[in-house]
Amino acid sequence: MSIFRTESDYPMIAFEEAKRILAERILPLAPRPASLGTILAGTVLAESLTAEEQVPPFDASTMDGYAVIAADGLVKRRVLAEQNAGPIANVTLSSGECVRIMTGAALPAGADAVIPVEWTREEQGWMATEMAAQIGLNVRSRGSDVARGQTVLSGGTVLGPAEIGLLAALGIYQPLVYPTPRVAILATGDELASQDAVPAPGQIRDSNSYVLAAAVRAIGCTVTTVRQIPDSASQLSSAIGSAAAEADLVLTTGGVSMGTRDLIKPVLENLGTVHFGRVAVKPGLPLTFATVLGVPVLGLPGNPVSTLVGFEVVVRPVLRALASQPARWRPERQVRLDHAIRHEPARLEFQRAQVFARDGAWWARTTGSQASSRLLSLVGANALLLIPRGTGDLDAGTTVTAMMIEEPEIEQPS
Amino acid sequence: MSIFRTESDYPMIAFEEAKRILAERILPLAPRPASLGTILAGTVLAESLTAEEQVPPFDASTMDGYAVIAADGLVKRRVLAEQNAGPIANVTLSSGECVRIMTGAALPAGADAVIPVEWTREEQGWMATEMAAQIGLNVRSRGSDVARGQTVLSGGTVLGPAEIGLLAALGIYQPLVYPTPRVAILATGDELASQDAVPAPGQIRDSNSYVLAAAVRAIGCTVTTVRQIPDSASQLSSAIGSAAAEADLVLTTGGVSMGTRDLIKPVLENLGTVHFGRVAVKPGLPLTFATVLGVPVLGLPGNPVSTLVGFEVVVRPVLRALASQPARWRPERQVRLDHAIRHEPARLEFQRAQVFARDGAWWARTTGSQASSRLLSLVGANALLLIPRGTGDLDAGTTVTAMMIEEPEIEQPS
Repeated sequence: MSIFRTESDYPMIAFEEAKRILAERILPLAPRPASLGTILAGTVLAESLTAEEQVPPFDASTMDGYAVIAADGLVKRRVLAEQNAGPIANVTLSSGECVRIMTGAALPAGADAVIPVEWTREEQGWMATEMAAQIGLNVRSRGSDVARGQTVLSGGTVLGPAEIGLLAALGIYQPLVYPTPRVAILATGDELASQDAVPAPGQIRDSNSYVLAAAVRAIGCTVTTVRQIPDSASQLSSAIGSAAAEADLVLTTGGVSMGTRDLIKPVLENLGTVHFGRVAVKPGLPLTFATVLGVPVLGLPGNPVSTLVGFEVVVRPVLRALASQPARWRPERQVRLDHAIRHEPARLEFQRAQVFARDGAWWARTTGSQASSRLLSLVGANALLLIPRGTGDLDAGTTVTAMMIEEPEIEQPS
Repeated sequence: MSIFRTESDYPMIAFEEAKRILAERILPLAPRPASLGTILAGTVLAESLTAEEQVPPFDASTMDGYAVIAADGLVKRRVLAEQNAGPIANVTLSSGECVRIMTGAALPAGADAVIPVEWTREEQGWMATEMAAQIGLNVRSRGSDVARGQTVLSGGTVLGPAEIGLLAALGIYQPLVYPTPRVAILATGDELASQDAVPAPGQIRDSNSYVLAAAVRAIGCTVTTVRQIPDSASQLSSAIGSAAAEADLVLTTGGVSMGTRDLIKPVLENLGTVHFGRVAVKPGLPLTFATVLGVPVLGLPGNPVSTLVGFEVVVRPVLRALASQPARWRPERQVRLDHAIRHEPARLEFQRAQVFARDGAWWARTTGSQASSRLLSLVGANALLLIPRGTGDLDAGTTVTAMMIEEPEIEQPS
């Protein structure tokens, strides 16, 4: 009798199959109106928006100067009033009259052009000029930027500062958007020392929850909870239950392999449905995906590198799908290996690497020992190399696919 | 007598000169210890850090299996105990003994290798195997990831999730970092309607404060205040004073040109020092830079496009300098114009454009009318074209410099 389970209950699936299952089950969060001043750049608009107001709302001067009647030509004009940007002076121009006007101010009734101050001289209430204005000179006419009824942004647009400003200019303060995903993070394991304690013999410091919280926030999502949970089925079960009630995605680390204390999968089976429990990738083989009360739960391995690689290749795309982002996956490039690398053919391997341009081509160099515990191997990496299943060791110069985490400094494409 | 000032008190300076003055006066904020769990990815480390602990802190198993004495060879071994990841069982191996062990658990005293469970059979307290282990097999030895005394990160490193995780693993919970700049935003002008009101005749909706708040947050900085201030010297003065007391950078929009109500520059002269008040760029000519109580104040024009272009070309580099970021400026590329563009030679002009790759070269197409009020011209733009002073209209095919705001989808460099 062995107390180990030596056979997993979960079939080993290919990474492509895992992606397919995730794509099928992860749907965008239900759109909600959001307060414009709180919308983060990168949020996706969930409705097409039509202007109910025009921009500008009135004919406005684009210069400091004098609002005139163009047909008056070069006559000396009487200065009736001053019109600043803001509330409109109660004045109507007749022939031979003008109004001192500031940039952005509404043109007074009767005026149809603005002569810039540099071309004028004002003395004792009269303005002289040598500029003959044409109708519309230095006037931004109402609706010229945005006409009433115009569709300004279509559903699916990624909102940046310009788009957010445009909505403000139109008085659209509660657009319907895909909400920012909220993420709960549970680091599991009796081996985790709590932050304020010196680790007891056999304990290690928890780094995974820091890695995940920073990575989640870096892509604009919200962290609801960060907790350490010991290896106890009842504590895990209650923690995952509460996390699923408050978050749109639950991340766990540790407890997913086959040791006697690896409790996550049985707990998830009790709480909901496990969709896959093993993926043929390295690092990160025991990657688990379940849904609990409709909320996705991703179980990442406990090694820090597996956790961060798992974030890049699975968690980030899931969060982008929840947020209805158009591009879910990091961009890929074909790169050439700067040195030979070793690889076991059984699994797709993600090797941490630095991609750089040399002589008009992309090259990649791995970042030191690829041990799955070694966070240092991620320091300085800007890409993950995808070394496919079925491939053995690779020679220097071989072309492989790189998933870009950060853009390298690039040269001219030609 | 003219009530306008037709000559500005401020000399018109070139953009390069403005950059030089900013570079001279904007220094990184004083480093502060920050709580690791709150550090945002992108924060810059202000000290070199040396490991005071080793990682892993003990010899750890990298597999589920049996901790053994390698020299025992293929004998049947007595199973003494089980060692999970976590507190260490009080047991010492002698020849012919083994301990059931889980991934990440500390090797018990006496053990020097781990035989994976797949190669074993346990029956009635005895473990049989056909694998002859070598010393160190499946053992991650103490300090093999990070040795005690090793410099792990040097000052100036940009902290990402991996670096933050590394610090957590080493128990460095309060690293010295350059703090996240805090920004106060003051939109000025009697013409601004308050959010909940329908704009009165002559009023417009405030979009600038939304644009700036979104842009500031998008680069990881904090917004302390967003306020609308009417054209009143005393209200402006008190608002700028309070803003400078709570923020690391104060941004104002509007009130910087030469109209009778353009109050920002005189108010800034009273409160502190104005370093420049006019820059030969389009849009954004009356761009103002002052310091008040040592805090930089940037006065941006009131047009929404000027505001956002000003953010890109001046505010963002200033914020990155305050945060001690290594790269202050957006990357530049040489691009070819897809169509002819008009340009007046008096000023450096920033034209909003979309840069794209075609036939192995970068091309640019401007995004519609370049009127400085027209936020729509920024929707879809991924770059600003820098059309230099002294240049007139440009033909299609001309090569110009583009400041990249977002990376375009790129092709292979060769």
